Amino acid sequence: MPLVLDPTAQDLLFREARTANTFTDQPVTDEQMQAVYDLVKYGPTAFNQMPLRVVLVRTPEARERLVAHMSEGNAPKTATAPLVAILAADNEFHEELPELFPHFPQAKDVFFSERPVREGSANLNAALQAAYFIVGVRAAGLAAGPMTGFDAAGIQKEFLDEDHTPLMVVNIGHPGENAWFPRSPRLSYDTVVTTV
Amino acid sequence: MPLVLDPTAQDLLFREARTANTFTDQPVTDEQMQAVYDLVKYGPTAFNQMPLRVVLVRTPEARERLVAHMSEGNAPKTATAPLVAILAADNEFHEELPELFPHFPQAKDVFFSERPVREGSANLNAALQAAYFIVGVRAAGLAAGPMTGFDAAGIQKEFLDEDHTPLMVVNIGHPGENAWFPRSPRLSYDTVVTTV
Repeated sequence: MPLVLDPTAQDLLFREARTANTFTDQPVTDEQMQAVYDLVKYGPTAFNQMPLRVVLVRTPEARERLVAHMSEGNAPKTATAPLVAILAADNEFHEELPELFPHFPQAKDVFFSERPVREGSANLNAALQAAYFIVGVRAAGLAAGPMTGFDAAGIQKEFLDEDHTPLMVVNIGHPGENAWFPRSPRLSYDTVVTTV
Repeated sequence: MPLVLDPTAQDLLFREARTANTFTDQPVTDEQMQAVYDLVKYGPTAFNQMPLRVVLVRTPEARERLVAHMSEGNAPKTATAPLVAILAADNEFHEELPELFPHFPQAKDVFFSERPVREGSANLNAALQAAYFIVGVRAAGLAAGPMTGFDAAGIQKEFLDEDHTPLMVVNIGHPGENAWFPRSPRLSYDTVVTTV
């Protein structure tokens, strides 16, 4: 077989995993979130820059503030998921770079002295880490519901600051009743991949 | 244990997987790449938009054209990896949306009629798919070497068109001698995650 990953793991992470739209009441613990992070923190980023920052929304007061900035279709899911995470990019990640990339500490100044360059790099690499995070939530036996339909400026003002850009909001929990639509079709290999 | 994913799979995909800088001569087959794609195509994207496009660089002539646009540090790796993939975002992904998101075919016009909106969405979601792709390469028992140090305009002109934006170039193969530096440190959970 071309894949060495166990078929059960393939199903857990990709083939049978789905974006859940409803959840049971079963809580998601901090212990689970720490285990997810301690797995996916090893996913690669450019210069090991690790720009992803996560805000776990646990209090009813914070949940209410978040729901107010979600799109109409996403608000009910965001209001009822056991746990909701705001995933953001840290545009000032370069401050940690000498610690994170010790064999070339000059990278901070050589490559990332300009804010627009940092923003572009932070956005790309935080998106990679957001995908690792989704895979990690699934590795914990949980369903993720990633969403990009929200008022980004509102969420940034409520929960972050001008140095942190919200990328997505993720509902996390065990899937409830009618948690998903039928699986939508996927583009074929021949549509996506060309060889030169 | 908080994670249900088998520890062997955790190691394969994250804990022991590394970004390889050298590779053996063992080839990477089209069968392997098809298996990788057929696994990671199920990773979620907004509106199931699937904007990632992949160019596999197999001929010596194409390899030479690609190496010419890589940064000085990345050129030798790109020249010697068994297989190199250019990962790009399709900014005209909305053309496929009625097929990919059949329960709301109006999404193409309601949300994605403006090119800047499509570019932003394509960049974020293709980056998610790039991360799924890296995980998938590891699921095939291969090492990935993702790189963002290249002349993007040059690669776009040589291998793509104005509707496709290069995101990264990935070396793929079995790790060779001295394939990596010691693992760099990672940010702690408490640095990355806050709770409100």
